[in-house]
Amino acid sequence: MAEQDTTRRPGGRSARVRAAVHGAVTELVAERGYGSFTVGDVAARAGVADSSIYRRWGSLEALTTDVAITWLTTNSPIPDTGSLDGDLRDYAAGVARDIGGPDGLAVLRLVIALSQAGTAGTEARDRFLAERGRQLQEMLDRARTRGEDPPEAPEVVDHILAPLYIRTLFGTGPATPEYVDHLVDRLLTPVSRTS
Amino acid sequence: MAEQDTTRRPGGRSARVRAAVHGAVTELVAERGYGSFTVGDVAARAGVADSSIYRRWGSLEALTTDVAITWLTTNSPIPDTGSLDGDLRDYAAGVARDIGGPDGLAVLRLVIALSQAGTAGTEARDRFLAERGRQLQEMLDRARTRGEDPPEAPEVVDHILAPLYIRTLFGTGPATPEYVDHLVDRLLTPVSRTS
Repeated sequence: MAEQDTTRRPGGRSARVRAAVHGAVTELVAERGYGSFTVGDVAARAGVADSSIYRRWGSLEALTTDVAITWLTTNSPIPDTGSLDGDLRDYAAGVARDIGGPDGLAVLRLVIALSQAGTAGTEARDRFLAERGRQLQEMLDRARTRGEDPPEAPEVVDHILAPLYIRTLFGTGPATPEYVDHLVDRLLTPVSRTS
Repeated sequence: MAEQDTTRRPGGRSARVRAAVHGAVTELVAERGYGSFTVGDVAARAGVADSSIYRRWGSLEALTTDVAITWLTTNSPIPDTGSLDGDLRDYAAGVARDIGGPDGLAVLRLVIALSQAGTAGTEARDRFLAERGRQLQEMLDRARTRGEDPPEAPEVVDHILAPLYIRTLFGTGPATPEYVDHLVDRLLTPVSRTS
């Protein structure tokens, strides 16, 4: 997993602890699901003290949100190909690859679990969705600036991300390049009532 | 929950046991998630013997699949309004209402959990998805028989069901009638490449 640590020594102990703790969370979510492990379990697996985790992250919710947002920002980067069509195709292909990868399912399950984990959980989910929305909006705003007519961000969520997420969650087959392109085709088709 | 028991005495003991067991499974999935309870837990909550559950259903996977498929077939009935447009709007509105209802989230979480629960789980998920596909295909075949040009069933899944499911799983707001109608509008728009 790429490291985005902003401490002074990016390759130092702090970054190693962060990587180990993030890895432990991802593994525990995949194995047990969110809600079935504690900060102590994470600490034991990462080989650090519980107090290190509490000092750095404050709570399990804050830690797991950090894991999910780090995954989101280090994977699926927002492309800048010079056209909306190119950006959406690159973006959709990247999302399909990333959520089909080793941690993608765990991160999706994490966001779903957070949504059902009380106020701290829904706040964490909202931070994740806000970051995803910010990334998308940046891409769509660039298209608008170029004079293109982009869809709204929620439409990208509904017609590109939701089908890819549900395929991953239900385990119903890999998203082929043709399938991903077809999703983009549909999104870029102007809507008109047919009845 | 509506009862579809086919025993000789639909209001009899057999139907009451079935309803109690189904209710216990739905509650346990909602509270703990699939994978965190046993046949014994279901039996205790439903007030029946473990052996009754094993005799009738055979395994926890078979029981939970029965719960999910019963939910699917007693909710979200396939409408027959005489037009594809009317059928899809009624169907989408019904799905939005049902998965926003008390057991909808539990059933979605159950199907996701089954997808990650080994061979018995994926077989159970496949039975659920096959039943859903059969319902959809019936509606789309009727449209084709009338001379309409319906979408393929997987497109209904991707562009009507997936957005509604992800909204429910992420807890990001109720699906308003306007939102649901917009999903149907998009699906019924012919696809043409824009690049």
